[in-house]
Amino acid sequence: MKAITSRDNPLYKRLKALAGSTHQQRRAHQALLEGFHLASAWLDGGAQPEYCVVTEGALAHDEAQAIVARVDERRVITLPDALFGQLSNVVHGAGLLLLVDMPEPALPERVASTCLVLDGLQDAGNVGSILRSAAAAGIEHVFCTPGTAYAWSSKVLRSAMGAHFLLHVYENVEPQTLIGLLATPIVITDSHGAQAIDESDLTGPLAWVFGNEGAGVSQVWRDAATLRVTIPQPGGMESLNVAAAAAVCVFEQCRQQRHAR
Amino acid sequence: MKAITSRDNPLYKRLKALAGSTHQQRRAHQALLEGFHLASAWLDGGAQPEYCVVTEGALAHDEAQAIVARVDERRVITLPDALFGQLSNVVHGAGLLLLVDMPEPALPERVASTCLVLDGLQDAGNVGSILRSAAAAGIEHVFCTPGTAYAWSSKVLRSAMGAHFLLHVYENVEPQTLIGLLATPIVITDSHGAQAIDESDLTGPLAWVFGNEGAGVSQVWRDAATLRVTIPQPGGMESLNVAAAAAVCVFEQCRQQRHAR
Repeated sequence: MKAITSRDNPLYKRLKALAGSTHQQRRAHQALLEGFHLASAWLDGGAQPEYCVVTEGALAHDEAQAIVARVDERRVITLPDALFGQLSNVVHGAGLLLLVDMPEPALPERVASTCLVLDGLQDAGNVGSILRSAAAAGIEHVFCTPGTAYAWSSKVLRSAMGAHFLLHVYENVEPQTLIGLLATPIVITDSHGAQAIDESDLTGPLAWVFGNEGAGVSQVWRDAATLRVTIPQPGGMESLNVAAAAAVCVFEQCRQQRHAR
Repeated sequence: MKAITSRDNPLYKRLKALAGSTHQQRRAHQALLEGFHLASAWLDGGAQPEYCVVTEGALAHDEAQAIVARVDERRVITLPDALFGQLSNVVHGAGLLLLVDMPEPALPERVASTCLVLDGLQDAGNVGSILRSAAAAGIEHVFCTPGTAYAWSSKVLRSAMGAHFLLHVYENVEPQTLIGLLATPIVITDSHGAQAIDESDLTGPLAWVFGNEGAGVSQVWRDAATLRVTIPQPGGMESLNVAAAAAVCVFEQCRQQRHAR
């Protein structure tokens, strides 16, 4: 265990630069997992973090001790509260975070099970909510195309509540490459001229594509889609938040699959 | 039309204080509607804003002119870009906002149609997403209990995309008062021992209660609930973001109602 007490320490400066910039995290292919829940979920996967950073105060708590005990001692860093606070994105947080290398799973050769494609989603809260829905629905693969919010940013991690560790999340996947791997129908939601979602057969595996919050699904995916579905909306408003729409879609598919059995 | 050019102008100072604090907006029972879409939707309702604030640059655009033309001239204020920027929550925004009195609908004497109860939801993005789902599902009434994020804050307004103007949104409604008005079954989602949502009869009107992101549905609503439903989740994760769960619930109700007809 090593104590850092100076804000001029090079490792502290590196941590602070990463904590302050999702862009830098993405460039470094690293993520900061803050709090007991995310840290335990990471360690359950069997990998070590690059560092486990903890406040002296947090070490008094059993939960923090239990996590620290699972990390190679040379990777544990203690910080005074004030220095830790500048790394933290959580008010009244647990005082513990892991610096980890982002998992970078190799693209599968062929995707024959249901998967999600996040096509330029910008809002970290939406990406996190969709990852959580995917993990709850038993979906394994989520592909993020360039322009999608960094899936391992603090905000996405927080809103996904550990879903990352139940999924294979692929970053920066080029649409044309992915289309070549998909062995299932490609389905988009469309408010005009599409079939109602509950009147469409969703019992087989599907690649669901969800588009950018403003622009919707991009042309390359519109062209590639083999199924267009709509969520009937009897109210005066005809659009849903993309994470809400994604939840309705994947749980309608779960419902149909349950009834088809 | 009146030009304000000094940051010491009392009206400008008031606008800046409101823009910087959701708490102050709530206390003043006012809201700032930023952008053409929200401003038009407000004016469509027939009410005048207290002020329409616009940058000189925005006035060159047809859309801004069309909105300004609908506002009593004495209520229009022009600001230099730099001063407007300090009121704005939107990067590269339209340079136009309305200061309005928040609608405060009187509580109905009896609620016999489907409604939503937001029971201490803290995240503005979740509240906005749920209002949008409600408006899309044709629900009319949304009741927010104390502790729920201010429904007329900039962030909720932005994420609800105009849903506010299709709904009656009631702020700060005490649960005991509301329970006395509800003439429908009260339904909560529950992951344990509840009936699958698609095996529950949702064809009649319901009062859906959605709870706080961390603590879930509070005890008063657990006690009042007459129906408990669960969203079957075949994956390893057994919880959904509350706005995702709300969308699945209300659109499953819409599906059942459509098929019952």
